[in-house]
Amino acid sequence: MGTVQKGSGNFTWQNVPAIRYEGDGAQGATKQILIGKSNGAENFALRYFEIPAGEASAYEHHPHDHGVVITRGTAQVLLGDTWHDVSEGDVVYIGSDEQHQFKNTGDGAFCFLCIVPAWGEKQG
Amino acid sequence: MGTVQKGSGNFTWQNVPAIRYEGDGAQGATKQILIGKSNGAENFALRYFEIPAGEASAYEHHPHDHGVVITRGTAQVLLGDTWHDVSEGDVVYIGSDEQHQFKNTGDGAFCFLCIVPAWGEKQG
Repeated sequence: MGTVQKGSGNFTWQNVPAIRYEGDGAQGATKQILIGKSNGAENFALRYFEIPAGEASAYEHHPHDHGVVITRGTAQVLLGDTWHDVSEGDVVYIGSDEQHQFKNTGDGAFCFLCIVPAWGEKQG
Repeated sequence: MGTVQKGSGNFTWQNVPAIRYEGDGAQGATKQILIGKSNGAENFALRYFEIPAGEASAYEHHPHDHGVVITRGTAQVLLGDTWHDVSEGDVVYIGSDEQHQFKNTGDGAFCFLCIVPAWGEKQG
């Protein structure tokens, strides 16, 4: 059954619980599950991440791929062995088993939407 | 392999081909495939839609579910038999086989990101 999750302005969702996200050196990073199994979504999940200034996502690779839409801030993203500058409105595709990492390069939070196949999201 | 699709400001992507989208009475609506099979994405697809003022998406239901993030404008969305007001930053989940439609209620374009499982996107 369908649902509407109201936003809180500037592509934030204050009514969705924030889970601590442990990246590489990430102390204050958070993840929110905007669409997941609790919605009955069996094919994909949609998450929202905020990574504070000076922090980074995990340096990792795994079988599930990612679709990312940057909503705020600036970062460098590693795709395989190449770093790319990204900012608001850029769309990033990270392939299955591809090494990747986001490093916040700005003064404020770096924020993005992240799609995974449903089997790639274990927390909800 | 990973890719970066640069945005053109205000969550638009001028470098991505726009396909005419035929909704109900939609004459000027467009769809752009931001992540799809051409990226090697086998699990999900990410599309971007613009629906001009006065137009609507198709009144339809189908086996694939949708995850939607409103990026600009206002609309009413039908989920099953209930209409909901939505605007920028709202996230909508449309379940498998659920009847749905978006009707633009604003003076400008109504724009949104839309996730589907890969098998729900036949055009790219």
